[in-house]
Amino acid sequence: MQREAAIVGIGRTAYSRASGRTPAGMAAEAARAALGDAGLSTADVDGVVDFNTGDSVRAQQLGWALGVDDLSWALDVSGGGNVASSTVATAFAAVSRGLSNVAVVYRSLNGRSGARYGRGDSGSIALEGELQFAASSGFIVPPMWFAMFARRHQEVYGSTSEDLGRIAITQRAHAVPNEHAQQRSPLTMDDYLAGRWIYEPFRLYDCCMETDGACALVVTTLDRARDLRHRPVRLLAEAEAHTFGGSVAQYADLTTMYSAYAAPRLWAATDLRPADVDVACMYDCFTFTVMATFEDFGFCAKGEVGDFFADGRATYGGDVVVNPHGGLLSEGYLHGLNHHTEAVLQLRGDAAQRQVAGAEVALVTAGAGPYGGAVLYGVDR
Amino acid sequence: MQREAAIVGIGRTAYSRASGRTPAGMAAEAARAALGDAGLSTADVDGVVDFNTGDSVRAQQLGWALGVDDLSWALDVSGGGNVASSTVATAFAAVSRGLSNVAVVYRSLNGRSGARYGRGDSGSIALEGELQFAASSGFIVPPMWFAMFARRHQEVYGSTSEDLGRIAITQRAHAVPNEHAQQRSPLTMDDYLAGRWIYEPFRLYDCCMETDGACALVVTTLDRARDLRHRPVRLLAEAEAHTFGGSVAQYADLTTMYSAYAAPRLWAATDLRPADVDVACMYDCFTFTVMATFEDFGFCAKGEVGDFFADGRATYGGDVVVNPHGGLLSEGYLHGLNHHTEAVLQLRGDAAQRQVAGAEVALVTAGAGPYGGAVLYGVDR
Repeated sequence: MQREAAIVGIGRTAYSRASGRTPAGMAAEAARAALGDAGLSTADVDGVVDFNTGDSVRAQQLGWALGVDDLSWALDVSGGGNVASSTVATAFAAVSRGLSNVAVVYRSLNGRSGARYGRGDSGSIALEGELQFAASSGFIVPPMWFAMFARRHQEVYGSTSEDLGRIAITQRAHAVPNEHAQQRSPLTMDDYLAGRWIYEPFRLYDCCMETDGACALVVTTLDRARDLRHRPVRLLAEAEAHTFGGSVAQYADLTTMYSAYAAPRLWAATDLRPADVDVACMYDCFTFTVMATFEDFGFCAKGEVGDFFADGRATYGGDVVVNPHGGLLSEGYLHGLNHHTEAVLQLRGDAAQRQVAGAEVALVTAGAGPYGGAVLYGVDR
Repeated sequence: MQREAAIVGIGRTAYSRASGRTPAGMAAEAARAALGDAGLSTADVDGVVDFNTGDSVRAQQLGWALGVDDLSWALDVSGGGNVASSTVATAFAAVSRGLSNVAVVYRSLNGRSGARYGRGDSGSIALEGELQFAASSGFIVPPMWFAMFARRHQEVYGSTSEDLGRIAITQRAHAVPNEHAQQRSPLTMDDYLAGRWIYEPFRLYDCCMETDGACALVVTTLDRARDLRHRPVRLLAEAEAHTFGGSVAQYADLTTMYSAYAAPRLWAATDLRPADVDVACMYDCFTFTVMATFEDFGFCAKGEVGDFFADGRATYGGDVVVNPHGGLLSEGYLHGLNHHTEAVLQLRGDAAQRQVAGAEVALVTAGAGPYGGAVLYGVDR
């Protein structure tokens, strides 16, 4: 059995620094919101999938919280932001295979008031594999790993703090009209440069916002999608790359990321090209992640991202709008699943003041360093 | 992109009580064996998937151990034996979707010499969800949960210790010629009844063998499979059920398992019927799991499994051969992935002394209690 599938609903809780709630409760709120957005009810749900590093809401527990006794499909993907795109694609595949008719994809966590991944709090990160050895040197958390990548990029391509700053500033400007964004005050280059060091060359505004909250999407068959409330959003292509055993230390070229491997596969799976992309929701745990992956996905040559942003080509009226919601840097770190909700809003034409005019194709990337993935979404024609 | 897929290779390490090795090393040995069995090399691998409760070998780490710098697909499914079948099916889907051309599925753990799940050792089981509350009453490990199911079955259907014993005895008889089985001595009913209580009504031989070891399968496209060394094994149908939030306490009818929900879906996905199944690799963490799920999948009416086994209908010359390798009870508890390697051997006709004559269709189930799944495999015609 093979069926076409589409995203038909999106939902979220408030994004905050202290939810005062359980991840299970937030997951249920986001899922109910997404179902309501689609015009579906909890009784329609027969599939649930999530990814759950640093979180404890299992897929089947969300099903139960929604009052569904019997899920015909449930999957807990072990991973963090690196699997956000592949997890959504897995829901498309489950609907396509006939395992689920209505699948909820969610991410829910108290990433700020609970165990903080960015600090390496116990329960937020597993000291396994390479990390069990690196930990003894204090090399534990992502800002350390990717600061190393960013420094290498500066050495090889001469990229600067200001180049990173332009990414933070552009995304913040996008967040200003986004009522769900946690940071909505415009950011100047002086503000950016005055940010305290986190790990050099990363300053405060290079780092995403650890966040409490949940968001969710609903996937169903394309046939059913066409009878629902919103314009269906289709999956046009998907690709992943898991390189060098997931090892930062073994990764071959620190000026690139997984995207150097995934991008050729993504573009091989479609006739579309970077120039066809209207909205690019680039995974931005750090500004540098945008820099490296934006280059790798072919929007510009290596080393030219700074100019690309400086010239206004990454915002409204430019070549492609990067993270129109403000991204993980300004909206909040829902481990990248909120990039998918934004892409859906944009492709529906429902993004209000931040709508990218005529958006028909969106790229959503996930992950950083050695591993990640990407999907291309398109409007239903 | 949609392609047909098939299993083309299987491999394993020795199964033992004390491997003296790392799960990573065993995973690599099993994967290399499976590739060799297929006539493929490690350089062909571009996809890896596993499920990993109580284990720490990540898919991308196995890729690295095999010398593969760049995996185009990798997935760590969070779960134990309940996801064994769905994990293999996910590899079929990845090949079908074009994400992988050659995918390795593996399970590797030191389940006996390391953290023991059956004892609830730290690191073997997560005290989350319902378990965090049940733990204060000491209701922690699977033999406790499923003993409760078995007692209810005895109350409702009058099933007896001897009925459970016949399952253990039949499977042990099957294990006698299996050089990979850890228990190969024939078992009598007196032996069975003399087994010490684990949790009543479960005696020693009702419980599977916690095991150190690894096994692996290789999935590739059907087109390529037909050029390789062995008869390809195809996936005919798949189904899952995740019920009542995965809660043992909330599960509706303790005489049944997830299979009461998954079986109708499985049979709806195929024209085949239980009478068409030649080999049934029934997930057997406990004898009672076979009893409940064998009934639920429709091989006989509720309460009749005892007679079915007593009458020789579950062994060679009968209706269907149940666990010809001896199952998790006698071969070893590889969390059910070894049921898949056995099904492949049987469908190839390569099972030597334990070959089920003319085997063309195999059912493999996974999981117990509220959640699990099943696949139907068939020979390539």
